[in-house]
Amino acid sequence: MSQEPDLRINPELDLVLDRVVDVPPRLVWRAWTEAEQLKKWFVPRPWTIPEASVDLRPGGMFRTVMQNPEGERFPNEGCYLEIVPERRLVWTDALTEGYRPAGAGFMTATLHLFAEGAGTRYVAVAQHADPETRAKHEEMGFVEGWGTCLTQLVELVKSW
Amino acid sequence: MSQEPDLRINPELDLVLDRVVDVPPRLVWRAWTEAEQLKKWFVPRPWTIPEASVDLRPGGMFRTVMQNPEGERFPNEGCYLEIVPERRLVWTDALTEGYRPAGAGFMTATLHLFAEGAGTRYVAVAQHADPETRAKHEEMGFVEGWGTCLTQLVELVKSW
Repeated sequence: MSQEPDLRINPELDLVLDRVVDVPPRLVWRAWTEAEQLKKWFVPRPWTIPEASVDLRPGGMFRTVMQNPEGERFPNEGCYLEIVPERRLVWTDALTEGYRPAGAGFMTATLHLFAEGAGTRYVAVAQHADPETRAKHEEMGFVEGWGTCLTQLVELVKSW
Repeated sequence: MSQEPDLRINPELDLVLDRVVDVPPRLVWRAWTEAEQLKKWFVPRPWTIPEASVDLRPGGMFRTVMQNPEGERFPNEGCYLEIVPERRLVWTDALTEGYRPAGAGFMTATLHLFAEGAGTRYVAVAQHADPETRAKHEEMGFVEGWGTCLTQLVELVKSW
């Protein structure tokens, strides 16, 4: 049994989705870091992602546009902070491309991947500035939303 | 003659201090990255820095407290983003320790150091979210303030 990793989670400020899935870290990483793949799973259906761009380097831009069934578009732009292939991906919407301040920041997200047998322990952590923002994100359905997306990701990976 | 480096400066959003000083990058780097040295030069005198802490890793905290002659204290907290020893240092106040969003962000600062003869070309870039924040920082005296600090840094380094 491996030691529990120190994920530095602050329960008063962070939200966490922690699940084991039966696809390997290598394929989860690919689904997260190729724009064309992201479009297929990164929002709960029937929403869609018409646009996604991934500039996978610290300071690089991570941008998606989510679209609801009525055709309204919701762009999300952030900046990658840390990239450890098949292990850890960190980005924030408090910064835009090249680390420029966005003016406001909703969250920093960290995706931790751990090999577990033939599968992956998938831990997504959303960090917030204060308990109010955490509560708002919880009400928006972070855990359910990201959980639904993860199910879609696993289906996608298995279809490759 | 070396090619002009691409510093990716946006003149509508950024402020720049660009000066050649007659001390080498190695010593400038030391003055910037050792908390006890920072206290001696990082604010224009007669202000002082009673507290400084440097956790020199991506995600690590950079914190200083500036104090005016009347004894009022002004804490500044940020997060290191990139550390390339003796070459480049990037941090932002849009994030706090461990990349957590600060809730608001005033600037991301990048210090670029280039060896130039026996000295250093010292380029400090402050990136802002919008032209209004840039203008505010300009009125606060970014170039003069950072310039005065740099003069103090050079004096300090020469005293070692």
